[in-house]
Amino acid sequence: MSTARQMSLGLSMRYHGYHVAAWRHPDYVPGCNVDFSAYRDVARHAEAEKLDMIFFADGVAVRGTDTPEGALSHDMKNAELEPLTLLSAIAACTSDIGLVATASTTYNEPYHVARKYASLDHISGGRAGWNVVTSWSDQEALNFNRTENLAREERYARAAEFVDVVKGLWRSWEADAFTHDKAGGQFYDPAKLHVLNHKGPFFQVRGPLNSCRTPQGEPVIVQAGASNQGRDIAARHAHVVYSVSQTVEHAREFYADLKARAAGMGRTGAAPLIMPGITLYVGATQEEAQAKFDTLQALIDPLAGLALLYTFCGDLSGHDVDGPVPFDALPQGGIISIGAGLLAEAKAGNLTIRQLYERVAAGFTGRFLIGTPESIVDDMQMWFETGAADGFNICPPMLAQGMQDMSDYILPELRRRGLFRTDYPGTTLRETLGLA
Amino acid sequence: MSTARQMSLGLSMRYHGYHVAAWRHPDYVPGCNVDFSAYRDVARHAEAEKLDMIFFADGVAVRGTDTPEGALSHDMKNAELEPLTLLSAIAACTSDIGLVATASTTYNEPYHVARKYASLDHISGGRAGWNVVTSWSDQEALNFNRTENLAREERYARAAEFVDVVKGLWRSWEADAFTHDKAGGQFYDPAKLHVLNHKGPFFQVRGPLNSCRTPQGEPVIVQAGASNQGRDIAARHAHVVYSVSQTVEHAREFYADLKARAAGMGRTGAAPLIMPGITLYVGATQEEAQAKFDTLQALIDPLAGLALLYTFCGDLSGHDVDGPVPFDALPQGGIISIGAGLLAEAKAGNLTIRQLYERVAAGFTGRFLIGTPESIVDDMQMWFETGAADGFNICPPMLAQGMQDMSDYILPELRRRGLFRTDYPGTTLRETLGLA
Ligand SMILES: Cc1cc2nc3c(=O)[nH]c(=O)nc-3n(C[C@H](O)[C@H](O)[C@H](O)COP(=O)(O)O)c2cc1C
Ligand SMILES: Cc1cc2nc3c(=O)[nH]c(=O)nc-3n(C[C@H](O)[C@H](O)[C@H](O)COP(=O)(O)O)c2cc1C
Repeated sequence: MSTARQMSLGLSMRYHGYHVAAWRHPDYVPGCNVDFSAYRDVARHAEAEKLDMIFFADGVAVRGTDTPEGALSHDMKNAELEPLTLLSAIAACTSDIGLVATASTTYNEPYHVARKYASLDHISGGRAGWNVVTSWSDQEALNFNRTENLAREERYARAAEFVDVVKGLWRSWEADAFTHDKAGGQFYDPAKLHVLNHKGPFFQVRGPLNSCRTPQGEPVIVQAGASNQGRDIAARHAHVVYSVSQTVEHAREFYADLKARAAGMGRTGAAPLIMPGITLYVGATQEEAQAKFDTLQALIDPLAGLALLYTFCGDLSGHDVDGPVPFDALPQGGIISIGAGLLAEAKAGNLTIRQLYERVAAGFTGRFLIGTPESIVDDMQMWFETGAADGFNICPPMLAQGMQDMSDYILPELRRRGLFRTDYPGTTLRETLGLA
Repeated sequence: MSTARQMSLGLSMRYHGYHVAAWRHPDYVPGCNVDFSAYRDVARHAEAEKLDMIFFADGVAVRGTDTPEGALSHDMKNAELEPLTLLSAIAACTSDIGLVATASTTYNEPYHVARKYASLDHISGGRAGWNVVTSWSDQEALNFNRTENLAREERYARAAEFVDVVKGLWRSWEADAFTHDKAGGQFYDPAKLHVLNHKGPFFQVRGPLNSCRTPQGEPVIVQAGASNQGRDIAARHAHVVYSVSQTVEHAREFYADLKARAAGMGRTGAAPLIMPGITLYVGATQEEAQAKFDTLQALIDPLAGLALLYTFCGDLSGHDVDGPVPFDALPQGGIISIGAGLLAEAKAGNLTIRQLYERVAAGFTGRFLIGTPESIVDDMQMWFETGAADGFNICPPMLAQGMQDMSDYILPELRRRGLFRTDYPGTTLRETLGLA
């Protein structure tokens, strides 16, 4: 089976679980969302199970607006660890698994980003990945001298230049530039230093980077953000695309579009690998899986539920939660492209407000599946084999339990079918992803 | 001895050794300057020896200007790891030692700095410290959309506001804000959240920080930068001041001035602790110490030596290196306050250009001592007991060897005299420094 195409699997670890009610579950340990050792232990488990990478989404604010009033204090998504410091600490406690952290091109400077990910690549022996995002919330703007986020065009223009600068800085030094010639007194060969001298509309960055070429040459680039502009950045640069698709048809279309854009830019090979987010509720029987799901759904506080809808729907607290979603009264032009799919789903399914927020809570805007190992792996295999996905970004409702479920149920079934590796092929993330 | 006042000791680890010729020494392992495990091993050694903290200076550029031409390629100070990612990885491999990294207020945003150091404080269980600097090189400006560094007044005005914002963000949440009330559905108590809403001339930062109160309450603040404005920031905020003094008279004056400024601002207690940088060449005999020193000094490449003088003296390559320092031809108004002391020393001692760069190389702008454990500890004790220092920031010419020398020679002698601890008093850096 070893030469057959196999899935890539990432584990999304933010908040120690994505379900809005995870922290109310009896098994959730209070404080694990800011406890390094809790993340470290799950990372080690994921590595023992040979997952490709762990992944941290990020935002540079408490994003909630406390709308409806009081909602924010019912949500655990206001306290976390900063992903790069966290991943660097995890790097020291692991040896093979990929380490992907999000950094926004809207609220950072390329020199810092290039440097920190290069450093993580050195520290981890070639396992670093940067998830490029452009951010979406006004709360973030308010922490960085602005009153609102940049408009999408400007955000993505900045992002495109930002990625160019970061890659240019990563190429400051050729791999064999540092000669360490003790006798001759020459530390590096000047012919192998390339000063960037970038001068663009958003950034003037001279370089070089004060680091040497990293173990991977350049850290892996992951991209998340599905608009036309987001897809262009992904097609040009990304090794992995973290996507959101509710249906296999949408996923196939996205997959084909991304691969075609990449080919159109002259890229060959497997990248960009498309990895939709997926949330699993799995048990030995369908009943067991459903019971896990029902337990969490029953814990959703209505205030926290309405807050989940705020970025797509505005404040719905004036409406009956068991009444229909008031489509005509919604603010126009959702902030974030993934909102559109959810609203389409709500319309098609005639969902009530409560049903919509329950649906968002269950999958954190992504797709969720409730089932046995066989039924879930059937579904994953179908996506994998019909041009909808190269793998999946697993977003567990509760992190430690979700990783345990992967171990107990999903990975054995994937391996029985030859769909997932039994060992790492090398030590760098590029090798693990089959891109070396 | 345990209640008597004891020294604080930091170990400065940048570049894996400060001497400009360290990398040419037979014992220097090529590549250790970017090798995580090499830093980790020294950090563990420092922790086994109960040092207060490890310390990383930093700059966000290859600072050398390649003046004189070719000099840059003879210097190892162009490749390093980023200090926060490095310290976070070290945090995961240690349990007690303090972890201090430099971040410039000129080229960062306060929200990122507050968040990353808070995260390091969480990950390390309360051992994080931030060394506040304002940067001094134009090379850094060129990596951040500018053509030259800000003038000192503006740099320090920005720094003062920056530190206020960071401390404000660290106070976003009271220590017991997070109630984790699973039954009631309330994750935190809204009365214990404080939104900063800062609006100042340099920064508009709403907050709150998306983290919770850290183990230390707030990470330790270290300050380096000795001008009038730098001293004011230190007096107001710093727990530790990293200083440079060539003479005990200068050190006493600096010490008294800082303590008086702090008292004038209403501060009580031991902080700010004053820790001058010091570089030690130590051996069982004076001859052995001198031989260690001579070996390194003999390895200084003249090009690299002249480059060391560039920030104080400009390009001196047109002058005879064995002739006098051309004081009248030097650029006016050194960029960095520590330059003045060195030039005064050169004038008083009638140093040649070579002697001056050898002197800078030997102490990396700080003071250096060549001697036996007894003579060196005599000197340290005299400073410690006569109002010149609360401890020292040890800047080894070669890192691993320097830490070994501390272990073999200096620490046993300090302990014999009751001047240094035999164990950590607690687990946080504040406790270690006696500030808890
Ligand atoms: C799957 C997915 C994951 C995302 N993760 C993040 C994230 O971690 N942090 C963030 O600021 N934005 C994140 N975003 C937002 C995007 O980067 C982008 O800012 C936003 O979606 C608007 O761009 P778009 O219209 O191209 O999607 C994510 C978007 C998608 C689709
Ligand atoms: C002991 C000492 C250590 C310093 N370390 C750093 C450093 O690591 N990074 C940096 O950018 N500047 C460093 N500086 C520079 C200062 O922060 C400051 O930018 C510069 O000295 C000019 O300010 P001043 O005139 O107040 O000294 C250091 C200065 C001193 C005195």
